[in-house]
Amino acid sequence: MIPSLGLGRRLRLGMVGGGATSLIGDSHRVASRMDDRYALVAGAFDIDPAQGRSFAADVGVAPDRAYDTYQAMLEGEAKRDDRCDLVAICTPNSTHYPIARAFVEAGFSVVCEKPLTTSVADAVALVNAVKERGVLFAVMYGYTGFPLVREARAMVAAGELGTIRVVHTEFAHGGYAAATATGDAPPTWRLDPAIQGPSFALGDIGTHALFLASYITGQQASEVAADLHSFVPGRALEDNAHVMLRFDSGARGTLWASGVAAGVIHGHRIRVFGEKAGLEWHQSRPNELLLLPRTGRPTVIERDTRGLSPLSLHRQRVGAGHANGYFESWANIYSDIADVLAARLMGRAPEPLALHFPTVLDGARGVKFIDAAMASAARNGAWVSCAW
Amino acid sequence: MIPSLGLGRRLRLGMVGGGATSLIGDSHRVASRMDDRYALVAGAFDIDPAQGRSFAADVGVAPDRAYDTYQAMLEGEAKRDDRCDLVAICTPNSTHYPIARAFVEAGFSVVCEKPLTTSVADAVALVNAVKERGVLFAVMYGYTGFPLVREARAMVAAGELGTIRVVHTEFAHGGYAAATATGDAPPTWRLDPAIQGPSFALGDIGTHALFLASYITGQQASEVAADLHSFVPGRALEDNAHVMLRFDSGARGTLWASGVAAGVIHGHRIRVFGEKAGLEWHQSRPNELLLLPRTGRPTVIERDTRGLSPLSLHRQRVGAGHANGYFESWANIYSDIADVLAARLMGRAPEPLALHFPTVLDGARGVKFIDAAMASAARNGAWVSCAW
Amino acid sequence: MIPSLGLGRRLRLGMVGGGATSLIGDSHRVASRMDDRYALVAGAFDIDPAQGRSFAADVGVAPDRAYDTYQAMLEGEAKRDDRCDLVAICTPNSTHYPIARAFVEAGFSVVCEKPLTTSVADAVALVNAVKERGVLFAVMYGYTGFPLVREARAMVAAGELGTIRVVHTEFAHGGYAAATATGDAPPTWRLDPAIQGPSFALGDIGTHALFLASYITGQQASEVAADLHSFVPGRALEDNAHVMLRFDSGARGTLWASGVAAGVIHGHRIRVFGEKAGLEWHQSRPNELLLLPRTGRPTVIERDTRGLSPLSLHRQRVGAGHANGYFESWANIYSDIADVLAARLMGRAPEPLALHFPTVLDGARGVKFIDAAMASAARNGAWVSCAW
Amino acid sequence: MIPSLGLGRRLRLGMVGGGATSLIGDSHRVASRMDDRYALVAGAFDIDPAQGRSFAADVGVAPDRAYDTYQAMLEGEAKRDDRCDLVAICTPNSTHYPIARAFVEAGFSVVCEKPLTTSVADAVALVNAVKERGVLFAVMYGYTGFPLVREARAMVAAGELGTIRVVHTEFAHGGYAAATATGDAPPTWRLDPAIQGPSFALGDIGTHALFLASYITGQQASEVAADLHSFVPGRALEDNAHVMLRFDSGARGTLWASGVAAGVIHGHRIRVFGEKAGLEWHQSRPNELLLLPRTGRPTVIERDTRGLSPLSLHRQRVGAGHANGYFESWANIYSDIADVLAARLMGRAPEPLALHFPTVLDGARGVKFIDAAMASAARNGAWVSCAW
Repeated sequence: MIPSLGLGRRLRLGMVGGGATSLIGDSHRVASRMDDRYALVAGAFDIDPAQGRSFAADVGVAPDRAYDTYQAMLEGEAKRDDRCDLVAICTPNSTHYPIARAFVEAGFSVVCEKPLTTSVADAVALVNAVKERGVLFAVMYGYTGFPLVREARAMVAAGELGTIRVVHTEFAHGGYAAATATGDAPPTWRLDPAIQGPSFALGDIGTHALFLASYITGQQASEVAADLHSFVPGRALEDNAHVMLRFDSGARGTLWASGVAAGVIHGHRIRVFGEKAGLEWHQSRPNELLLLPRTGRPTVIERDTRGLSPLSLHRQRVGAGHANGYFESWANIYSDIADVLAARLMGRAPEPLALHFPTVLDGARGVKFIDAAMASAARNGAWVSCAW
Repeated sequence: MIPSLGLGRRLRLGMVGGGATSLIGDSHRVASRMDDRYALVAGAFDIDPAQGRSFAADVGVAPDRAYDTYQAMLEGEAKRDDRCDLVAICTPNSTHYPIARAFVEAGFSVVCEKPLTTSVADAVALVNAVKERGVLFAVMYGYTGFPLVREARAMVAAGELGTIRVVHTEFAHGGYAAATATGDAPPTWRLDPAIQGPSFALGDIGTHALFLASYITGQQASEVAADLHSFVPGRALEDNAHVMLRFDSGARGTLWASGVAAGVIHGHRIRVFGEKAGLEWHQSRPNELLLLPRTGRPTVIERDTRGLSPLSLHRQRVGAGHANGYFESWANIYSDIADVLAARLMGRAPEPLALHFPTVLDGARGVKFIDAAMASAARNGAWVSCAW
Repeated sequence: MIPSLGLGRRLRLGMVGGGATSLIGDSHRVASRMDDRYALVAGAFDIDPAQGRSFAADVGVAPDRAYDTYQAMLEGEAKRDDRCDLVAICTPNSTHYPIARAFVEAGFSVVCEKPLTTSVADAVALVNAVKERGVLFAVMYGYTGFPLVREARAMVAAGELGTIRVVHTEFAHGGYAAATATGDAPPTWRLDPAIQGPSFALGDIGTHALFLASYITGQQASEVAADLHSFVPGRALEDNAHVMLRFDSGARGTLWASGVAAGVIHGHRIRVFGEKAGLEWHQSRPNELLLLPRTGRPTVIERDTRGLSPLSLHRQRVGAGHANGYFESWANIYSDIADVLAARLMGRAPEPLALHFPTVLDGARGVKFIDAAMASAARNGAWVSCAW
Repeated sequence: MIPSLGLGRRLRLGMVGGGATSLIGDSHRVASRMDDRYALVAGAFDIDPAQGRSFAADVGVAPDRAYDTYQAMLEGEAKRDDRCDLVAICTPNSTHYPIARAFVEAGFSVVCEKPLTTSVADAVALVNAVKERGVLFAVMYGYTGFPLVREARAMVAAGELGTIRVVHTEFAHGGYAAATATGDAPPTWRLDPAIQGPSFALGDIGTHALFLASYITGQQASEVAADLHSFVPGRALEDNAHVMLRFDSGARGTLWASGVAAGVIHGHRIRVFGEKAGLEWHQSRPNELLLLPRTGRPTVIERDTRGLSPLSLHRQRVGAGHANGYFESWANIYSDIADVLAARLMGRAPEPLALHFPTVLDGARGVKFIDAAMASAARNGAWVSCAW
């Protein structure tokens, strides 16, 4: 069992967006509930106020904390003694920045969907605002909560792979392989720059692939050379991105983000090769981490088994062999945040193992990466710096 | 998002056993929380009353509903207007029967751990008591909540496999492969007949394998021929069971339950072959169902994809490709129960899709199966009826 | 490179059956050719003499050694100084015995298809005849030539699994799942007792599964309890067999042989569990042997890698990672035979590593197993001895 | 069975290099023997003449055709009426060109190891020489003989994937991950430019990856942008290559060739995504081709099953489900060559299905690709044309 917070109460969670038609909002709610550390108490759930209030009732939020707009929520919550401990921002990409900034400046801690912002300037401004106000700010790269992703990070950090040389990271699916006229045509708003920002493949999923690589290797990409392309006619944003990477440590790699990988449902995976060993992990089989020792045999590392690191083990809810999934990964991140928030509330230093949620800086680096890749593509694939 | 109950409140859950040292109790709590249909309000969590009360505080149960014994809980709850809607029994096997029977006779709905009882006579008595009192009674065969197990059932029911011919069902692991003196020796109480009942391999995991087969095929085993054995010296109960099965429909099969499958962490899987096609499912990769058409190609069916049955799709919380795990499977069963309980409270007929939790009769059939297999083993492998 | 025989010539191979319409004959020829140890010099290839002679010309056999019948071949070859060193018998099951016995009694070494004979009495007679004449006699259980099957045997022999406890061995496919009237109906002669002998599933493939288990574990099944069934109406022979096994060493197991595993193309696989570790091997991915240590992690052993046994390594033709297949497995058995025959011709003791082809006794044990399983099925699944 | 040539004799094969210490020479011999279409009759097997003659005796080549040098072989064979029908060149990279050119100019048909030459100028000269003399010239990209690689080509050609969009092709292993001082240090001659040519990762294995992509898609890479690097200190040649590809048809892709993929034994694989479907194939499991339809379910295509193309089926030696390996793939290419040579000898047009061996032009394109990738790497990753 995951130990309780020790706070004597649940943390108060508010939400902007994430209403009835949102897929992602529900993921935030389920994840926050899993370890019983949060109560959802407030929200501005929908751009349509009536729908937002109706939804609030459905999810048990009291009418006086069901707000019509995020501004109203900000104003209302700021006044309360029992104001939200954390605000989850689950709105479209282009609105992340103003909403996040407003809550940060009012002193609220925030967990925000990715990509953090749609421009590097906004990302810089937000990083600075967070630093200034000292709030906690997490970005929801939800896949780094998987216990075996954390084990991979711990193994690299412990030197089990030796110096990292090669990293291949991917997030590719076929959800946007169909042209508009076909039966399986994707929603068009995802490809609308006004909503999505300047990039589709990199913005929607590519930053997940980048962060997975950074999280596991403990290294940052410093330069990129990119080939961006839109295969389906009429799209304003790229639907496929090939990117070569150079890391600050000397490692080299590639990143592939694609919406046109026909027939692939959720191709998020990574391979890391060091001097001594390689690692391979696939989101679709998240309870298996393949270790490839240079002088030994391929070995399957399973969740919650003997010899794993404390980082991997400390949030196990059920023994080895039972399948662990997406919500547990998200829940780990939500519980990391909860542990750190609770420590703050109790005036204690947070447990180091809880400091594993993606931060505003991780989010900002993703925005910089998108920007650099677009610049490289515009310059015939020249290497462009993405260092923060 | 899973729609809410429409009851205007959460269901009230009580728990017997499942305290701080229990693994299974936490699974019940996490699963019950996932869809926000239950609030844990009462419990007799521990054989040690002080520990039970301390645990109740940890999980937010009010002191006046933290009971010292199940009898006190029964008495205390029976008096309340806001008495528990459902009581989860998470105690050792040998105590399931008296506790379950007492709550049933007092009119409480129950979800009970497996095996239901440790004798056929008790199982018969419990089935009768449930029928007489008309309460809801579920048995926690948690694996039949996986969406692709449900898809498999729907496919068989729709005739996609044709007449079922051969079924191979297994639950085998290596957790009890080590002898007592070794570093990885298992806990001994699991092999103590006074706690565990008359069977270890069949009682602890074999009935999961049987129920998985029954649930998917929609058929019952009618006869068994068994070879039971204890490989580790000094064990009073069998640690390995090979069973040949005959089903009432004419299908034949085998069941393997083992604690001595060295190196296997959680080998729960099934293969079903019909006239037209075969199916294969492994608990360790629960989001893949392999379809083997007689005249076509092996095909991987993934969770939440086009063309799946309503039974498989109706409790999806996140889109295809995201890994689904153990807790979602359990949560599906808890939410099935919740939907049926809520319908009863609102005086409505339950939604047919919710009638998929394992019932007291499913539990009783497992007990009969254990008894028949033991009788067969005692009679040199003769075929013995296990029909209910 | 596999070293040459050192005999200064190729061995002379003759063949009975295996002509233009035979699938298996070609496998024998390709396998015998792979290591350049044999030349095909004689044959009675077909029940139709004209077709047999025409086929002989196609495969480069001289007209004077293209015989009309096996009796003519026996007579013709017996007279020659350059008579065949080895006779391959590739005819239907029911003819194995008379042909094999005739060649053995005339002093020819033989490699015979399985099952060895269609009755236990014939098998006993053949074993005795081989012993009396001192010829080499191999039975073509072709799968035990795979390098990783041999590694599995070497690992068990070296004690790496500890005492063997549980063995699950299978050969199941869907080639006979269809009824006669359907488009994918199988050939009927395979189910004709006059050609096939008294058993189909056990006789055609079940003995492969048995021998694989014996070969890897180094142990013999001593008792069987069987459930034999024919699912497709109108069949005189069983198309599915479930068998429980007890080994002379105390291990327990199951064997599944089936022609009605719809959608399975070639399901030949085995799992062996000992005190210290388990092993798993599938014919369809023959270059991967899964090792499951009781106290470690699942490990993939690949062909021709560091640390493998001499038995596994001594016939490698290309380095690790290159896929090895069916013909290499057969070729290993043919080259084992060749090495032993060459040693005899040179008056030397054979290299111990070459003594790994299946012998007449291995073939005879398979026949005894079929007989015992049929007796058990006829006696309501009672345990019946199959000890030789 | 693979039908015989119809020539009334086997083709006469000669070999340059490929002696006792050569791994690759044995692969050529085993492959050429599999379908009984060739007899090895001549060779200059070793740079050391005595060893070459001794080896010739071992493999059954007559003393008068065991030559001391390739020049002697050329001279000797050119005089004979029964001169070689085909010469296999199995020598180090840097010698391919002079040897191949000499035999071509003397009118011999040739099968040459890859890379074809070590400079573009030599490749151009060889292509021209072949055209001028009209000989058959094959390059041994041995992996395109796998039946499912050929099925993949047939499927793309038949439009089953629609317009190809994205191609990811790889050949990466860990054989050169170790530094010189370690126990698993690789042979140094492979990294010696004087023997290997100007490139290691691309030259040794990268061209396999390129040709696999070209063969399956039927398209040529027209531009490359490359990042080449040597991770192990002291190497004169790159041990890792990341290359972005643009194809003449508009498809985009990546190619990864590496000797430092620690723990990977033989990572040769490809993914191709078109408008309608994707395909995935791994050399290590060559009998499974994964089809990913855009609007359907992932499907496993197995060798020799219903519905495959004639190209995939026409050289099957044993039924579906039996593992097919490296030697069968090579044998298919050797038999393609044999069929075309036999047709020439008989004055007939070759069967179109036999025209699937890689040609001198395919080899030359690989050399051009290496050259372009090196130029791109030298120009900061700029796109460089590799069009022939």
